[in-house]
Amino acid sequence: MIAKTPEPPYWAVIFTSERTEGDNGYGAMADAMEALATKQPGYLGIESARDPALGVTVSYWADLESIAAWKAVLAHTAAQARGREQWYAAYTVRVARVERDYDFARDD
Amino acid sequence: MIAKTPEPPYWAVIFTSERTEGDNGYGAMADAMEALATKQPGYLGIESARDPALGVTVSYWADLESIAAWKAVLAHTAAQARGREQWYAAYTVRVARVERDYDFARDD
Repeated sequence: MIAKTPEPPYWAVIFTSERTEGDNGYGAMADAMEALATKQPGYLGIESARDPALGVTVSYWADLESIAAWKAVLAHTAAQARGREQWYAAYTVRVARVERDYDFARDD
Repeated sequence: MIAKTPEPPYWAVIFTSERTEGDNGYGAMADAMEALATKQPGYLGIESARDPALGVTVSYWADLESIAAWKAVLAHTAAQARGREQWYAAYTVRVARVERDYDFARDD
């Protein structure tokens, strides 16, 4: 659901992807990587949604060092390589510093 | 699809939402707002995906002034109010400065 993040500033990694046809083990690997990310130092939360055409996943991190460390985790590196070989037709990664945020929740 | 954005820095507005039950005119309004956003000064692109549970929409902007101007557009202000009244159970908006990006596209 919506991630509970601390007061800004913190960091966001915006991962937008166009998938290839078929699952090919993607769903299981995505779940495993998300579970692994939550154990990383500096991890703050993740939000993900997928249409047939496009996936948008935003993960939140305390600092740039946490993002670099997560990118370098061995199992994650292997998943990234398999993503380029098999799962993704295209993707873009954007690293952004969250400067402010606000939210709304229904009373009823 | 994946937005074609310029070299960083630029800005991202990350809008994550949990919807109420039913469409209630939401889809049509979302399409209209997206079309209107593309006409705003400083608009760079938009990426959006929706699961049954969660929607993640990221719009990209040249600067903070563009973001503030888009937030204040009259039709958009009305849509925001109707969103709080009817369409959204909860949402979070995060404004972030994109510091770097990289992408991958399949050759074949």
